[in-house]
Amino acid sequence: MSNIFSDRINDVPKSFIREILKVTVDRSIISFAGGLPNRDLFPIEEIKEATTKVLTDDPKDALQYSTSEGYLPLRQFIAKRYLDKKGLSIDPDNILITNGSQQGLDLLGKILLNDGDDVVIEEPGYLGAIQALSVYKSTFHPIKLNDNGIDISALRDVTSKFNVKLYYSVPNFQNPSGITYTDANRQEVASIISGSRTLLVEDDPYGELRFMGSEKRSFMHLISENTVLLGSFSKIVVPSFRIGWIVARKDVMDKLIVAKQAADLHTNYFCQKILHEYLTNFDVDTHIDKIREAYRSQREAMVSAMHKYFPKGINYTEPEGGMFLWIEMPEGVSSLELFNRAIEKKVAFVPGDPFYVNKSGVNTMRLNFSCVDSATIDIGIKRLAEVINEMM
Amino acid sequence: MSNIFSDRINDVPKSFIREILKVTVDRSIISFAGGLPNRDLFPIEEIKEATTKVLTDDPKDALQYSTSEGYLPLRQFIAKRYLDKKGLSIDPDNILITNGSQQGLDLLGKILLNDGDDVVIEEPGYLGAIQALSVYKSTFHPIKLNDNGIDISALRDVTSKFNVKLYYSVPNFQNPSGITYTDANRQEVASIISGSRTLLVEDDPYGELRFMGSEKRSFMHLISENTVLLGSFSKIVVPSFRIGWIVARKDVMDKLIVAKQAADLHTNYFCQKILHEYLTNFDVDTHIDKIREAYRSQREAMVSAMHKYFPKGINYTEPEGGMFLWIEMPEGVSSLELFNRAIEKKVAFVPGDPFYVNKSGVNTMRLNFSCVDSATIDIGIKRLAEVINEMM
Repeated sequence: MSNIFSDRINDVPKSFIREILKVTVDRSIISFAGGLPNRDLFPIEEIKEATTKVLTDDPKDALQYSTSEGYLPLRQFIAKRYLDKKGLSIDPDNILITNGSQQGLDLLGKILLNDGDDVVIEEPGYLGAIQALSVYKSTFHPIKLNDNGIDISALRDVTSKFNVKLYYSVPNFQNPSGITYTDANRQEVASIISGSRTLLVEDDPYGELRFMGSEKRSFMHLISENTVLLGSFSKIVVPSFRIGWIVARKDVMDKLIVAKQAADLHTNYFCQKILHEYLTNFDVDTHIDKIREAYRSQREAMVSAMHKYFPKGINYTEPEGGMFLWIEMPEGVSSLELFNRAIEKKVAFVPGDPFYVNKSGVNTMRLNFSCVDSATIDIGIKRLAEVINEMM
Repeated sequence: MSNIFSDRINDVPKSFIREILKVTVDRSIISFAGGLPNRDLFPIEEIKEATTKVLTDDPKDALQYSTSEGYLPLRQFIAKRYLDKKGLSIDPDNILITNGSQQGLDLLGKILLNDGDDVVIEEPGYLGAIQALSVYKSTFHPIKLNDNGIDISALRDVTSKFNVKLYYSVPNFQNPSGITYTDANRQEVASIISGSRTLLVEDDPYGELRFMGSEKRSFMHLISENTVLLGSFSKIVVPSFRIGWIVARKDVMDKLIVAKQAADLHTNYFCQKILHEYLTNFDVDTHIDKIREAYRSQREAMVSAMHKYFPKGINYTEPEGGMFLWIEMPEGVSSLELFNRAIEKKVAFVPGDPFYVNKSGVNTMRLNFSCVDSATIDIGIKRLAEVINEMM
């Protein structure tokens, strides 16, 4: 049989990270390669209680089919939290529950992108977004991140030359770089996007995991008509439920609901009810504080170890929250080559390559600090420094 | 802002059934309009036990991210069940866990269909498939169903004229018609498809709900290279978990996994583990027998009432399983008009229109018998007969 596949699926990059993670299953390797929340911090007892309540109160409802939009009380909870935490007034009807925010990306690509449509993505960019939007054959315009956020002059240049349909951003503690857009940077982005037809997707899975610095303004404050928010409970409650959400204006939401229904009818309803039960009966803020404190101290351990062991000429970000930081080595040092040597020394990370749309053999890499304790981080970074020293 | 949406999403029909169901929320209406499994038959105590076990044995694993392919022991269970029940030998690596079989349709459309690709669909056809595949801008070739299955000469005609990429079928107790392909019909279909590049999608959510007649051969027996199976736990265990699966040959599976990862990383893992716990610790066959027996007697009540009350000239299917039957009125009688009058008499059904790709004002309708008890069915069909008599 000849090639029967669609053009779109042939364009999607395979997940390089999956391959990397296979190498790091070896228990003797200290792995900074993953991207998982720390499982030791899951609110297990609380989830147990919430589950028991859902299966006692109205089990027939909890186990039946439900609506494509998602469980209304959960959407109301999310809306109220936006108001309480950010002063954003959002109607629950403008919220759609999705299978994690990854599905939000797929649905947005589906309803917005025709072949070749212009999409701005950060460089380095979130791999899941590159994959999800590649499916819809978008033309990517990667724009470099710097310490303040996105490169404004490059953004101005791209938006003046192309009719940008979608700008995908992770303005808080970005994956992979850990970079946060400053308020000034956001203002400049907003002034460029405002009044255009571009939809700015603000993907914010880590936003509540800020452990230093001050809260920044959401694009939903600045250019609400142009902004689509993606949120997720994966990093602040549990990932396996696969529950995230999209906030979008009405015309976009109408199309998203049609697309959601065609994609899978609705998100797992049983877990929507459990999550809502958990959120309304327990103090999720206290729980988030616990995660923040753990990640903060692990991030401290990683940055201190880098300061202590790394040779001159190695730059790294110092994130104010989230789960990742980013290392840049001198030009010409290949992180892929470094990876192979690091594995021999029993330490792992993700080479930068998969986070670029059109580059390989790069000198950058992503390190995750959410899953390794501080003492082990020190040992791992010391090993990594040895490999870097050997290569330089 | 001008139209920013993709061409594909503008082609997707809105769910007419959603609109219909809104009308039937009125408790005084006897509704044959739904398509839900009977919630009184959910194995609630068993699900409770399974859930407790999952949250006790290894909760950190059950709440963490997992693999795109799905929980291996669940895929192994599905493979073993195919062997035990149908004599089909299937490798768990050829099974992908999806968010209900609806997601299977979306993923297949995504990896297979370029704009305008030719797709065979049954007439009447499953609405969810029409929606899911419309997204990928397929050219539908509806082929009529008859009492034996698909119209063979029409299928031969279409496959000789067009390069059919995908043939979507529900050969057992089809939704909406209740029709089952005979073994002879399947043989003829197989001989037409065999050796071609067409993928025949055998969607089988109701297959285990046979309450009379003999088990038919799967297309996976007849033309395994050309067949993709879709399965679901929604009708035999619970729907809210949104757990279904796809069986496909290796080259197709490789693409499906890439598409699944881009779509939502993986299916709710917590519920995959609960379901597996349920399936391995309780006797699902005894549970399915209970559902079968209930649906059988409700189907009997519906068919008897039709026999008793309906005027001559009204045809209806007498399904051997599943949840639906199909009524055909004389030419020129509009089921939409009948629907409006029926609502006044407090009885509801789904007019046939949404099950056709390119017809409206049709003389057909779908009735669901899974959720109404036999005595109420008798009253409902009597009311419906009155409205039909008035209109004829």
